[in-house]
Amino acid sequence: MLTKPLSDAVEALTTLNNQRVWSLLVTVFGDLAQNDGDVIEGPVLSVLMSDMGIKAEATRVALHRLRNDDWIMSVKSGRNSLHSLTASGRQESAAASPRIYGHPNDAPKHWHLLILGSTSARSRKAMAQLGFAPLMPRVYLGPSDATPPEDALVLSPTSLPHWLAEQFEPKDLAQDYAELHQALLRVQNAIDKAASITPRDTAVLRCLIVHNWRRLVLRHPELPRDLYSPGWLGHDCRSLVSSLLSKLPKPDLGQMSLE
Amino acid sequence: MLTKPLSDAVEALTTLNNQRVWSLLVTVFGDLAQNDGDVIEGPVLSVLMSDMGIKAEATRVALHRLRNDDWIMSVKSGRNSLHSLTASGRQESAAASPRIYGHPNDAPKHWHLLILGSTSARSRKAMAQLGFAPLMPRVYLGPSDATPPEDALVLSPTSLPHWLAEQFEPKDLAQDYAELHQALLRVQNAIDKAASITPRDTAVLRCLIVHNWRRLVLRHPELPRDLYSPGWLGHDCRSLVSSLLSKLPKPDLGQMSLE
Repeated sequence: MLTKPLSDAVEALTTLNNQRVWSLLVTVFGDLAQNDGDVIEGPVLSVLMSDMGIKAEATRVALHRLRNDDWIMSVKSGRNSLHSLTASGRQESAAASPRIYGHPNDAPKHWHLLILGSTSARSRKAMAQLGFAPLMPRVYLGPSDATPPEDALVLSPTSLPHWLAEQFEPKDLAQDYAELHQALLRVQNAIDKAASITPRDTAVLRCLIVHNWRRLVLRHPELPRDLYSPGWLGHDCRSLVSSLLSKLPKPDLGQMSLE
Repeated sequence: MLTKPLSDAVEALTTLNNQRVWSLLVTVFGDLAQNDGDVIEGPVLSVLMSDMGIKAEATRVALHRLRNDDWIMSVKSGRNSLHSLTASGRQESAAASPRIYGHPNDAPKHWHLLILGSTSARSRKAMAQLGFAPLMPRVYLGPSDATPPEDALVLSPTSLPHWLAEQFEPKDLAQDYAELHQALLRVQNAIDKAASITPRDTAVLRCLIVHNWRRLVLRHPELPRDLYSPGWLGHDCRSLVSSLLSKLPKPDLGQMSLE
């Protein structure tokens, strides 16, 4: 258990949503043990998950599921289990990392719009995978570096009317970012007040920050700030996440005290 | 009556559509007497209209209508009537002239696309007046020099998929241009074969060429050639019209023989 003031940070981040335990584990391994050869020992994983409010039984069930999904593998070493990402779990974690950990300065500055030849040319899901967000039937927005389908009419904006953000910005996501922003400010406040932060605290806070951020940022394509309304906090959240993670450098799990 | 081979040209141009007589008169005055002070004497107008296959009675009725519409005015001079454009008739004729007489080299080379904030933001008619052609609901195309509504999202194309022309090109207009193109080739052939062309022949041929061309070209915004399908003949028609009119310079109506 983290103590005051860091427990405030944990509370802010764990009350945001009903976290799925398997998804939280995906975050933990993706953040703390993404490199080839990285492992997390059973007892270390247990205390981290416990610090995040997850019961041991729930962690066991979720680990079982992730092993079945070929995301996690576990081997015995003496009395301990050593858990690690599988090759495919590592690959998918690495694929998502640029979106999650990207520095605010690396965010796309330009965007383009494209029109598909017909509504059935590509599904919304296929377009999302290419990095494009829907504006209206057949019409999508994406960062300039996203590659459009070959048969699309591609256009560069020369004006930016106020109604665009209203129509394109997902309302539920705007609300989710506003709540995350509040939580991240509480985390920042708690860290600033803390006399010291142990490697274990650091690991727990990192995972919770990344987890809540990842849930939102991976739900939509990355687009320049000026496409959004003034009240949109997605980009502010990235700035806060980036600055918080730099204050919470990845700890050495092998040296972590489990007291 | 024009004689062979020029009568072929007249036939090609008068069988294209059921010409409204008042509309043909608008062409005659717009082409032959657009300048302030230009008049057409009654007997001259009669032979020109008769050469175009219009009966005297029909011309009288149409003149009456155009006087009521404040497009034409007629004054008596001895035994003759002198007909001319009114100030507003002249103004509207002058406004349409750039689209009708524009040289092929002056056609727009670039275009942009715009998206309106809602389907009800502007009517199709209002957009057509601004020079924009509809592609799909809320989406319009126009030449780069057409000024978009202030609240529109304006974009420049960076790709040109083949489906664009299919979707945007009005099918009926494509067919009308194909027929006009055939007729203009017959006119060109007739002119090339003719031993001589009198000022009266010239006036009749000019008016028929301009009239059939005007009917089509004023029905749609002017857009660059590369937006259209390979089979589109609108731009070829402009080239032919331009070259034919240069071979048929505007005659001096005062010197015209009415024999």
